[in-house]
Amino acid sequence: MPHRYFTTEISDGTATLRGADAHHLARVMRARLGDTVILCDGNAVEYTATITGFGDECVEFRVEPGYPSAAEPSVEVTLLAGYPKQDKLEQIIKHGVELGAAHIVPFFSRYCVAAPKKEEQKNERYNRIAAEAAKQCGRGVLPDVALPLPNFGAVCRTFAQYDLVLFCYECGGAPLRDPLAAAKPADGEKLKIAIVTGAEGGFAAEEAEMAAKAGARTVGLGPRILRCETAPLAVLASVMTLTGNLE
Amino acid sequence: MPHRYFTTEISDGTATLRGADAHHLARVMRARLGDTVILCDGNAVEYTATITGFGDECVEFRVEPGYPSAAEPSVEVTLLAGYPKQDKLEQIIKHGVELGAAHIVPFFSRYCVAAPKKEEQKNERYNRIAAEAAKQCGRGVLPDVALPLPNFGAVCRTFAQYDLVLFCYECGGAPLRDPLAAAKPADGEKLKIAIVTGAEGGFAAEEAEMAAKAGARTVGLGPRILRCETAPLAVLASVMTLTGNLE
Repeated sequence: MPHRYFTTEISDGTATLRGADAHHLARVMRARLGDTVILCDGNAVEYTATITGFGDECVEFRVEPGYPSAAEPSVEVTLLAGYPKQDKLEQIIKHGVELGAAHIVPFFSRYCVAAPKKEEQKNERYNRIAAEAAKQCGRGVLPDVALPLPNFGAVCRTFAQYDLVLFCYECGGAPLRDPLAAAKPADGEKLKIAIVTGAEGGFAAEEAEMAAKAGARTVGLGPRILRCETAPLAVLASVMTLTGNLE
Repeated sequence: MPHRYFTTEISDGTATLRGADAHHLARVMRARLGDTVILCDGNAVEYTATITGFGDECVEFRVEPGYPSAAEPSVEVTLLAGYPKQDKLEQIIKHGVELGAAHIVPFFSRYCVAAPKKEEQKNERYNRIAAEAAKQCGRGVLPDVALPLPNFGAVCRTFAQYDLVLFCYECGGAPLRDPLAAAKPADGEKLKIAIVTGAEGGFAAEEAEMAAKAGARTVGLGPRILRCETAPLAVLASVMTLTGNLE
């Protein structure tokens, strides 16, 4: 499989790659004139591109007509994940991108144990991790990682953006497949699904009530207790399976 | 949730816990006479147990009548995972146990990159990781990790043990749901499913042919390329979803 890079500078049959990606292609991969790569505009359109020149910190290409990315799922999933300890958020981002998440939104909640600092610097690193995963697994969009929401109220206020919000609660709820089967997207749009999972401490009963009042569907994940870094990926795999996007 | 320990020494309304678990309960958890824990016999039967005494390196209990573990899935899944680099096998074991795997069998194959040493010592650690995960997530059996199989021929020779072997191939195959819907267990038994996933290097075309000849069903996991530590967990979550064991 040829290497894949994201760039927005694609027009009239030519394209330019700059910065770290240009360095990677030119220096690390030692690409030559005439080599081909896949360029992706980040909006699920891909181009076969042939290198026509190396500039100062940039690579120039001739591109063939674009074609839709085959790798994007038919549903647009946002992972809202309680902020975990250690490097677990990185695992959630990396594997979440592979499994087709479009957006990742960490948040703090009542029983959240982590109290990280320097969130803006960390967010840059998180977005780089997401971009690397997107390139490696062949995504057609660049999934983004948001700055963490400060509390569960802020999480609930985002629910209106989605066609379906799955609140994964350790005390159980409906089987995932039921609300998923009933959900309908806006005309001509992808079904927008939010998956909400807790950090190590789980959710307070008041938070579960708050989520239900804000329109979330409370779902259960079975009798085994999933770790906070496993739950979002299991639910994502489950949603992708039930919507035919893992086959 | 009370703490959970595995012991086979349960009979006539009493039980004994020994070794590291007894130390953990008595010293680390500072348990007292009259405290209750869940004891599990490793065969999916659980007991509510009250501490009646602390011995030399052991804890004694009075146990109530046993009841079937609610946490065991209705299918018996074996993860056959290509031996990955770094600590990825530990991740597969830990999260695989949470997601309900009964057995984990690493193997070497043609394009496998890892060349680990001291496998017997490592296997002890792997089984400890599996046991810890089983306790933490509330399993009713102790999933085991086998010593690695030396080559893909040895993997294929195990296929006859299963009702269904899902060979996950990066070059694609049937949707997972099709062979799963068609599979039937032996009378009165759980459906025995094997999930076979590759290491970083993936599978050789000859290995895919060998698997198919040995009776495996070749399945695809969609257009995104999953990392070798993500694929077994995604397929496991998918199998558990499709068999109603993640709800």
